[in-house]
Amino acid sequence: MSSSAVPAYRRMSVERRREQLLAAAVDLFGHRRPEDVSVEDVAAAAGVSRPLVYRYFPGGKQQLYEAAVLGAAEELTGRFAVPAQGPPTERLAAALGRYLAYVDEHDAAYGALLRGGGVVGTSRTDAIVDGVRRAAAEQVLRHLEVAEPGPRLALMVRSWIASVEAVSLLWLDEGKQPPLPELCGWLVDHFTALLLATAATDPQTARVARAALGQESPASPGTALLGRLTELFG
Amino acid sequence: MSSSAVPAYRRMSVERRREQLLAAAVDLFGHRRPEDVSVEDVAAAAGVSRPLVYRYFPGGKQQLYEAAVLGAAEELTGRFAVPAQGPPTERLAAALGRYLAYVDEHDAAYGALLRGGGVVGTSRTDAIVDGVRRAAAEQVLRHLEVAEPGPRLALMVRSWIASVEAVSLLWLDEGKQPPLPELCGWLVDHFTALLLATAATDPQTARVARAALGQESPASPGTALLGRLTELFG
Repeated sequence: MSSSAVPAYRRMSVERRREQLLAAAVDLFGHRRPEDVSVEDVAAAAGVSRPLVYRYFPGGKQQLYEAAVLGAAEELTGRFAVPAQGPPTERLAAALGRYLAYVDEHDAAYGALLRGGGVVGTSRTDAIVDGVRRAAAEQVLRHLEVAEPGPRLALMVRSWIASVEAVSLLWLDEGKQPPLPELCGWLVDHFTALLLATAATDPQTARVARAALGQESPASPGTALLGRLTELFG
Repeated sequence: MSSSAVPAYRRMSVERRREQLLAAAVDLFGHRRPEDVSVEDVAAAAGVSRPLVYRYFPGGKQQLYEAAVLGAAEELTGRFAVPAQGPPTERLAAALGRYLAYVDEHDAAYGALLRGGGVVGTSRTDAIVDGVRRAAAEQVLRHLEVAEPGPRLALMVRSWIASVEAVSLLWLDEGKQPPLPELCGWLVDHFTALLLATAATDPQTARVARAALGQESPASPGTALLGRLTELFG
């Protein structure tokens, strides 16, 4: 494949074939436990022979699984990137909306790929999944304009990201209730509440929270939450 | 072993031997990936022969792993039970303090057993770990005096429990910083904040939050958090 004599349309076809096999594998991993997926199943689902699957993925099931995890990780990581303008809770809602749309569109695969992989999970796939969490944390801290988070703020952001993941999986288990926009709004409120609760005992987080609140607009989710809480609890 | 002719001291010895083998296995699973633990290793660590391990655990490594997960699950579940008296955030702090003490004492095993098990993880061990989460959620709802949680309240409680687990693992990764009492206090504040944020858009949670706040005392963690937030953000 590395020969320069291979014409362009052939290279495209190789890529498309690879994508087709990977899509078949992702679909299978999404609907069965990894131990119940074989290279034969992937070949059958893609309508090709078993040797052809091995030609593209010499490492067989393990390699297909890792490629599937990596593909999902890259797609999810790409979705966090939103412009650094507007009220922080609006930016968070935009990034989170894109993330949750992936969860909704790729429901079975999301669950399968993020649940650890059982027999095909390795320290490499664990590291890929952990890389998504780290990238998400970096994005959140970037929008909060924090270059060097202290341990409390760092833990708070990672904790919220873990909640987003756990809630996404529970949401899939519960037949996607509540509706997506409501889920997204609640997770943004969850972030705001957690930021304030952490601010109560961590000076760095208090400074960051005050700066972030200063950027909220009258119609942003953060302002709406604080208004509603004042209404409810005085 | 089932013969009634076996005297009592012999039965005790059987139980002790089983516990000893299990403790050796838990320690090994805590310090190596499950694929790098063998029945030979367990036998060597316990100072016994390989056949003896198989006499107690005929299913070998898989059975040792499941028994280890089950033991940790039972211990953790037992720690949630606290008397239904006093301010809700004080009860939560008491139960959570006991849970986090387990994480601290059994650090390596906690991580290994809750991380899914890799090659020895099965739908059975997944179900055991999920049972701990469900039991924790039931306890929290019991203390909030909620018999039938709606989807939003149920999701909120499960989301907080997922955070506790994720934060415990991150805390172990970060060399147990911040100190345990601080971590515990922050996770209680996290719960209060999440309850209030969910109350903002869910009527059932708003009723539950109002009732819970009504049971707080001047010195309870919930009152301290709200006082501090008023001080910081007006």
